[in-house]
Amino acid sequence: MAVLVVGFDGDDTLWHSETRFHVTQAEFRELLARHAPGADIDTRLAEMEMKNLAIYGYGVKSFTLSMLETAIELTKSSIPATDLEVILGWGKRMLMEPTELLDGVEETLRELSGRYDLLLITKGDLFDQESKLARSGLGELFLGVEILSEKNAETYRGVLTRRGIKPQDFVMVGNSLRSDVVPVVELGGHAIHIPYAVTWHHEHVPEESLPRVGWDRIEAIAEVQTVLERME
Amino acid sequence: MAVLVVGFDGDDTLWHSETRFHVTQAEFRELLARHAPGADIDTRLAEMEMKNLAIYGYGVKSFTLSMLETAIELTKSSIPATDLEVILGWGKRMLMEPTELLDGVEETLRELSGRYDLLLITKGDLFDQESKLARSGLGELFLGVEILSEKNAETYRGVLTRRGIKPQDFVMVGNSLRSDVVPVVELGGHAIHIPYAVTWHHEHVPEESLPRVGWDRIEAIAEVQTVLERME
Repeated sequence: MAVLVVGFDGDDTLWHSETRFHVTQAEFRELLARHAPGADIDTRLAEMEMKNLAIYGYGVKSFTLSMLETAIELTKSSIPATDLEVILGWGKRMLMEPTELLDGVEETLRELSGRYDLLLITKGDLFDQESKLARSGLGELFLGVEILSEKNAETYRGVLTRRGIKPQDFVMVGNSLRSDVVPVVELGGHAIHIPYAVTWHHEHVPEESLPRVGWDRIEAIAEVQTVLERME
Repeated sequence: MAVLVVGFDGDDTLWHSETRFHVTQAEFRELLARHAPGADIDTRLAEMEMKNLAIYGYGVKSFTLSMLETAIELTKSSIPATDLEVILGWGKRMLMEPTELLDGVEETLRELSGRYDLLLITKGDLFDQESKLARSGLGELFLGVEILSEKNAETYRGVLTRRGIKPQDFVMVGNSLRSDVVPVVELGGHAIHIPYAVTWHHEHVPEESLPRVGWDRIEAIAEVQTVLERME
């Protein structure tokens, strides 16, 4: 196998993301507990997010809209507008936070960019992702950027075809088994999984449905180079 | 000039969009007038949209969040959550509406797709735009789809470079002088302007800052073919 192109996921692979959702969700839980004591707020919000996914797609704006809807429903519309304004403010704060890179990201990408073509392949809100990339300072290291509304075998195939990349020359690096590993292995590419401290419930994959071969798991992005060298 | 590639804008060029914002905004005006009589609701909403543009970007979700924030601000937080839930519902309705094509779109695209490479080049929310394209039934007529977070000379240059298209071989068709005409002419491409009945305030361009040459104005998409033939 001759690795030519290495794709990197963005959220929770290059920069922190899920932690911020968790921080906001903790604030949300606390705010709502005052109005709806005893309610299972996390479950209700998760259900709302899943219900709205087909309408809103991924991202902070979608999350904000789902928090607002959950807050209104859970309190049977008794929540005051001042509290809903606080929730709107959380969404803006999340969108404006500086991009905080994970350890070792910049060194690793700099090193690899001299030997492979690097692609950023991320999903979510176009505007937010572009803004995060711009603030990350990593833009120049990538040959191309692909922001997908969903990551599955079909959308990865679209990227590879459009760019004339053979699956066997392609390695994808990311924190999500569901979005970065399973579809890439299905296409005949190789995947490198780097678990992040927190995984969004929607990204969970049962162990038994994971491919047996075609991917590695490492603990930190600095190990990517070693895996790539072993493959060649 | 040898036209090889024709780019089409989506919203208000291929399918109706602004009309829907206007319909929703009229409902918003009516709802808020009950809580804040005499307020200049349209101006306040427009200001809020502009203030939030750098944080939210374009699209229905951004518009919904700005409506909610305007409603809370204008009523000094006295608006009940039930009314805010109504606004959330308008956003969802807009996102789920069927894609309604403008007159002549399908015939024109079918005709042109046999003679030129067609690209859809649109801006806004990735998820919403992909969903609209999928529901339009036009997907197969386009060689490629580019959804940009902003349309300016730099982002058009990115599209053309990525796809190996020379500006002089490229014609862009759209309803916005600001997004579809000015930046393309600046790059050395040609533009065809098809005004739509309603123009969002943000897309207005003063007549004196328009390029003198490099573009045509037509009344309906069916005339595109004639312009292209005249150019060859």
